[in-house]
Amino acid sequence: MAETVICDIRAVRSVIEAVGLDRFMDDVIEAMRISFRAFDPEATVTIDRTGFAYDKPDLGLVEWMPTMEVGGRVSIKTVGYHPTNPTQRSMPSVMATTSLHDTTSGRLVALTDATFLTAIRTGAASALATEQLSPDRPIDLAVIGCGAQSVSQIHAISRVREIRSIRAFDPQSEVARTLRRRLPPSVVAEVEVVDGDDARARMLGDTDVLVTATSVDPDAGPVVDDGAHRPHLHVNAVGADFPGKVELPRSLAERAVLVPDNLRQCLAEGEAQTMTADQLGPELFELLQSPRPSLQHELTVFDSTGWALEDLIAAEVLLGHCERLGLGLTIDLQPDPADPYDPYDAVR
Amino acid sequence: MAETVICDIRAVRSVIEAVGLDRFMDDVIEAMRISFRAFDPEATVTIDRTGFAYDKPDLGLVEWMPTMEVGGRVSIKTVGYHPTNPTQRSMPSVMATTSLHDTTSGRLVALTDATFLTAIRTGAASALATEQLSPDRPIDLAVIGCGAQSVSQIHAISRVREIRSIRAFDPQSEVARTLRRRLPPSVVAEVEVVDGDDARARMLGDTDVLVTATSVDPDAGPVVDDGAHRPHLHVNAVGADFPGKVELPRSLAERAVLVPDNLRQCLAEGEAQTMTADQLGPELFELLQSPRPSLQHELTVFDSTGWALEDLIAAEVLLGHCERLGLGLTIDLQPDPADPYDPYDAVR
Repeated sequence: MAETVICDIRAVRSVIEAVGLDRFMDDVIEAMRISFRAFDPEATVTIDRTGFAYDKPDLGLVEWMPTMEVGGRVSIKTVGYHPTNPTQRSMPSVMATTSLHDTTSGRLVALTDATFLTAIRTGAASALATEQLSPDRPIDLAVIGCGAQSVSQIHAISRVREIRSIRAFDPQSEVARTLRRRLPPSVVAEVEVVDGDDARARMLGDTDVLVTATSVDPDAGPVVDDGAHRPHLHVNAVGADFPGKVELPRSLAERAVLVPDNLRQCLAEGEAQTMTADQLGPELFELLQSPRPSLQHELTVFDSTGWALEDLIAAEVLLGHCERLGLGLTIDLQPDPADPYDPYDAVR
Repeated sequence: MAETVICDIRAVRSVIEAVGLDRFMDDVIEAMRISFRAFDPEATVTIDRTGFAYDKPDLGLVEWMPTMEVGGRVSIKTVGYHPTNPTQRSMPSVMATTSLHDTTSGRLVALTDATFLTAIRTGAASALATEQLSPDRPIDLAVIGCGAQSVSQIHAISRVREIRSIRAFDPQSEVARTLRRRLPPSVVAEVEVVDGDDARARMLGDTDVLVTATSVDPDAGPVVDDGAHRPHLHVNAVGADFPGKVELPRSLAERAVLVPDNLRQCLAEGEAQTMTADQLGPELFELLQSPRPSLQHELTVFDSTGWALEDLIAAEVLLGHCERLGLGLTIDLQPDPADPYDPYDAVR
């Protein structure tokens, strides 16, 4: 049968009702930990993401992120990024789907919403980076950019570190003020809203872990000033994912041990885009394969551009729960003709 | 609402039941004619197709063909090509889906099977080429390769030219012998099965229109010998779509006026891949914009590699019928959160 499993947002909701948000986040973090530890670039092949970018009707892009487990599946996340979505049409700025294709027959095996999954997997990657690069004790967290991604960043980090305090800045201060009520109940820290550009510029100070998750326009960064900081400051820089778009001051990025999620992609469109490979630290998967605990005491930046393998991992966790729980729609999307040489057999 | 229309194979079947195969083919031919006449490379942008190719468990590839109507939609056909599918797993060698994405919000607007549509649109393009490049009178048709694509090639050509006779060769002669019963009833010509490599090699002769639609391996072509032919012979060369894969003798391709479906793609992976741009004739869309009737009396080749715009056109014809007839599934695939800054809103 040429069946395809469709995991729509209702199926996602039913999975979360059944297993809980915390458990789901833990599952993705753990699956990513296992996958990164075992990662072999010969066995998992990624094609550089590309897509269409445009500025009408608003600035936006649709791009695709393909990866293949050799001898297994091809996964393609197709993602739209439209930063005016929240204010102009009350929609998430990131809207995505992930498709899984069998490499024996080419059949579409599954299609799932990846809007929710993108938030989860981006959080999970930062959790792993924070675990590797920040001292293992309660942390003071600072967040610049309080949109959808910040919620899952804080949530994911809370699964690997106790969060003692949260300071939050957003250029729309009303968005910062609603952050606390968007956090899941398991995150107990209060949120101190930081107002004004002067305060934002100083957010490096009194912070153990900083998250930057902004929609800053290309060439409009950085979103924070360089300055005094704790010696072990760790930054999860989540927003940079486009040529010209960076969030951190160059002096800070260059002084830090910068850990890319994916070297080639970070050099093309991450915080590393003004740097060369020899200025960078190990990739995150390398840290998981060969931990360097001394980095927990140094200034570090996780350059999170979003890696296609993370999307495959998150989709497989979700689809695993769907299968176990009997959720999702199974449809005959593609034909299964009695005669494979007859293109009209399936429609007769 | 973040709704997505899913057009599964049952919806495709219901559309064909309602409108008929002939009418559907005519609709796609006409939509393509209108679209090619109006084609403006500034307004319709295509990204070169790319994908994963592999040889385990069998030779195959999964690739994607993206195109964008500027200010309109992004269409991505994701297509698997697995030539052992028919013999090894009784599945079509080409299995595809097409997704349509809105460029305002990035939402997935629709997903449709494109296995059936690929056969239809490849046929429709050959019909337009045949109409431009073959004399307008009853034709003797020859076909090399009698798999799924040959059925829709013959069907489509029959919509623009009366077919007087059909000769058919396939390396598996039992596949050639079942061709007649796979053709739709509106095609009335008998099929003469041509057996043996000697006869295949001579298939240029006594032919007005030749279709090559084979799964010949890269570097294993050509599939026909050069030789005597009618001066106005027109060839629809449909199989070449991969580096090294060509179906025609170089002497024939170079002597003919070769009309690409898409210049850049044909130079990369079509019959034109051993040639340079200055050796080629106009692209098919240019012929529709500025017809050259004298070409109907010359040796011509339509180099059909399969153009992403054709996939968008075919998907829009299908989805138009679905909408009119109330067919297809409408699902909430992606979230429509009350708070666009809350990635967990949709799953609470």
